[in-house]
Amino acid sequence: MSSKAIAIIAGVGPGTGASVARKFAATYPVVLLARNPDNYESLVQEINKSGGKAIGISTDVSSPDSLKQAFSKIEEEHKGASVAAAIFNASGRFVRKPLLEMSVEDFSAGWEVSCKGAFLFSQYTLPLLLKNVDDGSSKYPPTLIFTGATASIKANALMSGFASAKFAMRALSTSIAKEFAPKGIHVAHAIIDGVIDIPRTKEWLKDMPPEAKIGADDIAESYWNLHLQSKRAFTNEIDIRPMLEKW
Amino acid sequence: MSSKAIAIIAGVGPGTGASVARKFAATYPVVLLARNPDNYESLVQEINKSGGKAIGISTDVSSPDSLKQAFSKIEEEHKGASVAAAIFNASGRFVRKPLLEMSVEDFSAGWEVSCKGAFLFSQYTLPLLLKNVDDGSSKYPPTLIFTGATASIKANALMSGFASAKFAMRALSTSIAKEFAPKGIHVAHAIIDGVIDIPRTKEWLKDMPPEAKIGADDIAESYWNLHLQSKRAFTNEIDIRPMLEKW
Amino acid sequence: MSSKAIAIIAGVGPGTGASVARKFAATYPVVLLARNPDNYESLVQEINKSGGKAIGISTDVSSPDSLKQAFSKIEEEHKGASVAAAIFNASGRFVRKPLLEMSVEDFSAGWEVSCKGAFLFSQYTLPLLLKNVDDGSSKYPPTLIFTGATASIKANALMSGFASAKFAMRALSTSIAKEFAPKGIHVAHAIIDGVIDIPRTKEWLKDMPPEAKIGADDIAESYWNLHLQSKRAFTNEIDIRPMLEKW
Amino acid sequence: MSSKAIAIIAGVGPGTGASVARKFAATYPVVLLARNPDNYESLVQEINKSGGKAIGISTDVSSPDSLKQAFSKIEEEHKGASVAAAIFNASGRFVRKPLLEMSVEDFSAGWEVSCKGAFLFSQYTLPLLLKNVDDGSSKYPPTLIFTGATASIKANALMSGFASAKFAMRALSTSIAKEFAPKGIHVAHAIIDGVIDIPRTKEWLKDMPPEAKIGADDIAESYWNLHLQSKRAFTNEIDIRPMLEKW
Repeated sequence: MSSKAIAIIAGVGPGTGASVARKFAATYPVVLLARNPDNYESLVQEINKSGGKAIGISTDVSSPDSLKQAFSKIEEEHKGASVAAAIFNASGRFVRKPLLEMSVEDFSAGWEVSCKGAFLFSQYTLPLLLKNVDDGSSKYPPTLIFTGATASIKANALMSGFASAKFAMRALSTSIAKEFAPKGIHVAHAIIDGVIDIPRTKEWLKDMPPEAKIGADDIAESYWNLHLQSKRAFTNEIDIRPMLEKW
Repeated sequence: MSSKAIAIIAGVGPGTGASVARKFAATYPVVLLARNPDNYESLVQEINKSGGKAIGISTDVSSPDSLKQAFSKIEEEHKGASVAAAIFNASGRFVRKPLLEMSVEDFSAGWEVSCKGAFLFSQYTLPLLLKNVDDGSSKYPPTLIFTGATASIKANALMSGFASAKFAMRALSTSIAKEFAPKGIHVAHAIIDGVIDIPRTKEWLKDMPPEAKIGADDIAESYWNLHLQSKRAFTNEIDIRPMLEKW
Repeated sequence: MSSKAIAIIAGVGPGTGASVARKFAATYPVVLLARNPDNYESLVQEINKSGGKAIGISTDVSSPDSLKQAFSKIEEEHKGASVAAAIFNASGRFVRKPLLEMSVEDFSAGWEVSCKGAFLFSQYTLPLLLKNVDDGSSKYPPTLIFTGATASIKANALMSGFASAKFAMRALSTSIAKEFAPKGIHVAHAIIDGVIDIPRTKEWLKDMPPEAKIGADDIAESYWNLHLQSKRAFTNEIDIRPMLEKW
Repeated sequence: MSSKAIAIIAGVGPGTGASVARKFAATYPVVLLARNPDNYESLVQEINKSGGKAIGISTDVSSPDSLKQAFSKIEEEHKGASVAAAIFNASGRFVRKPLLEMSVEDFSAGWEVSCKGAFLFSQYTLPLLLKNVDDGSSKYPPTLIFTGATASIKANALMSGFASAKFAMRALSTSIAKEFAPKGIHVAHAIIDGVIDIPRTKEWLKDMPPEAKIGADDIAESYWNLHLQSKRAFTNEIDIRPMLEKW
């Protein structure tokens, strides 16, 4: 029930989302969205215990209804609050299949979340980001960040669904950046080019030194630094890769 | 009822589609797909009268059912025929709107046709293109061409739906190219960067000389030349713009 | 001693240059430039014997003086002739070395030819291409083509000199295209992405089928098709790769 | 006479270079290189007075001899010191001219500094950056940053020399990044896309609010944040533009 600026993170799991949540929670009350509450429950506790403020809301970002409900709850919890930072970190089901073996659902899975979800999330957060421009409740320009991947700029064989969704999200990010930068909103797209070091990837590259993987906390650090940028120096796209990545 | 290789053009209207149909009809029986029969009926007559062979099928490329029916008809009409060239020229509804005024339908309109439609069209044509590699019924490598636009590589403000769909289609094209080139199929993406000179654009740029617009027949010429390329020199992307275009 | 439009090809060796020369010689008298006369002498004979018209001029395209002399000779041989097509196919010495082991000369070798040479060649040919617009001695828009490489868009480790030179040439090509397209000149850049099948690469990829390499004649075919494009459909960039190329 | 890690900034003028120097001087002794001592003298005084440590060396980065002398002086002044950050901010003479009016000198002016200069600067700084990896005298991965421009990715008419030089520098940056990242060096290229707010641009865009120009201090902030990135999250390219930039 405060009018303090908040941060909203969509797509919170054990990797980038959690790290971003912790980082932004040091400054803002955070709202964590994920389909599965398992993905945010312990994190919400952790943040609240350590002096921050967090709530989690089970949300399917590809569903207009689900998002509508989520933002009603946000408005209830944070009455009148504007948004200082909104991070879209959700990603559709990754399907790696020969084109002729893909179902329409396989193909659309990426787009439903990465593109339609990003569009819907933007529609809900942009008015609150604009409100933040007006109420000046944050020191930094309100920021909307999209998490992309190698596939945002490189479409490999067997990756038609995932890559086309990520290309689409990148275009969406640029289009929003051009429309909303003049209104004071900082929109950025991050190309995460490499394996993120999370529990699920523990066995990957395991004979390599730690610098073969991207640190989730390090991504969060970069996102935070994007947020700190002034209106006279917006970065609209960064790439992030570990020292040992081949590219 | 022939086993001759055919060409299939999706998205036939009074512009690029018609020109491409005429050009490829000089060599192959053509199948023209468009939602509205008005868009192909006179063209089908014209081609059949002038010694070519054409049929038109009313098809919504964004609908799996509609495409299924269309390809059943194609199989009926051209029993056992393989496909020498498939051109995807359909484009979703162009919606130019501020992001916050777009409905989900507005935003998805481009993707439904330009990306999902392109995916479905590829799924139906690729087996027939592969068949063409095997039956050798064409002199040239079987070719799958996607018509893109400026928005395929440039996402402007107010164009989030259209641009994200076109970016997505470009990724799809590249992914298919990488998967199917080793199997002998030539996949190409064309960035049509400018106003095409068609009845609908008659009033546009009307104080400018004819070289300010792209000729639809000239696009068709370029597509044909892509088709002629040998397996030792595939072009996977071309841009096409008129002499007087600023870019 | 004719006023017929001619074609000039810089960088004639046993590969692309020779194939381009043969292709354009079927329509235009050709002038072949190469540093080493061994690279054009037999080709000049071959073209002249088979009904074409060719001369060769020993030229270092990175030297303003050498180019000046070459174009004086061209003016002597083809008094008053305009240029229908100019193809810049020269490439600087390829140096693959760790950055710290490169001499300034190693690093500059690529730029001297690929970029400065391309600039000088453009300065000599553009007035003759503009003349061709005026005298209308060719059926097709006068065309200036630059041969690029994978390194034109991808800068790998150990390739700093070569890649920076090729990136530079690509920028030059685009800048010239934008300046001269409105004057009627078609400028195109070709990204040759793969190994060209020439005597020097005979041992490369030798366990692979022929479709693992680019055919030099096939490149020439594509260049010719670029030349045929009308003023209402200029392609400013194409990529060319063999069917079996990974990219 | 210290073994503390230092920062070296090439191309110090009243804009980005000075801001970067001030920013990095808060942590490292700085060495400022510029052709004209007027460009660094008062800044050197300012930094030394305010508790930092700075020296300036008159240097022409396009001259191997001049750079050799500069790095001898650096070794004298900072015996045994390694380099924590090297920023290449020099830019060649900007020549905006029709291609046919450019002299070879006009055309080469950009490359001599932006590309050859960047190459030479890299050759002198990389061994000192590698030394920093070994001596661990900085908390952050040693960093080499190149200042690019809009022209690094967009080649406009009349900008052939400048754009080709900037494209070349970008390729150089990527090639070095790929070679030296595995050795622990962070290489980044910044696309500065807009007018920087410096005395020379005072009259530009003067009817626009301050957010129409890029703040030099804000660029410095971004460069510093690049330097802070860990080995598990290197950004190799950022763009920077003011809120009101059209792109």
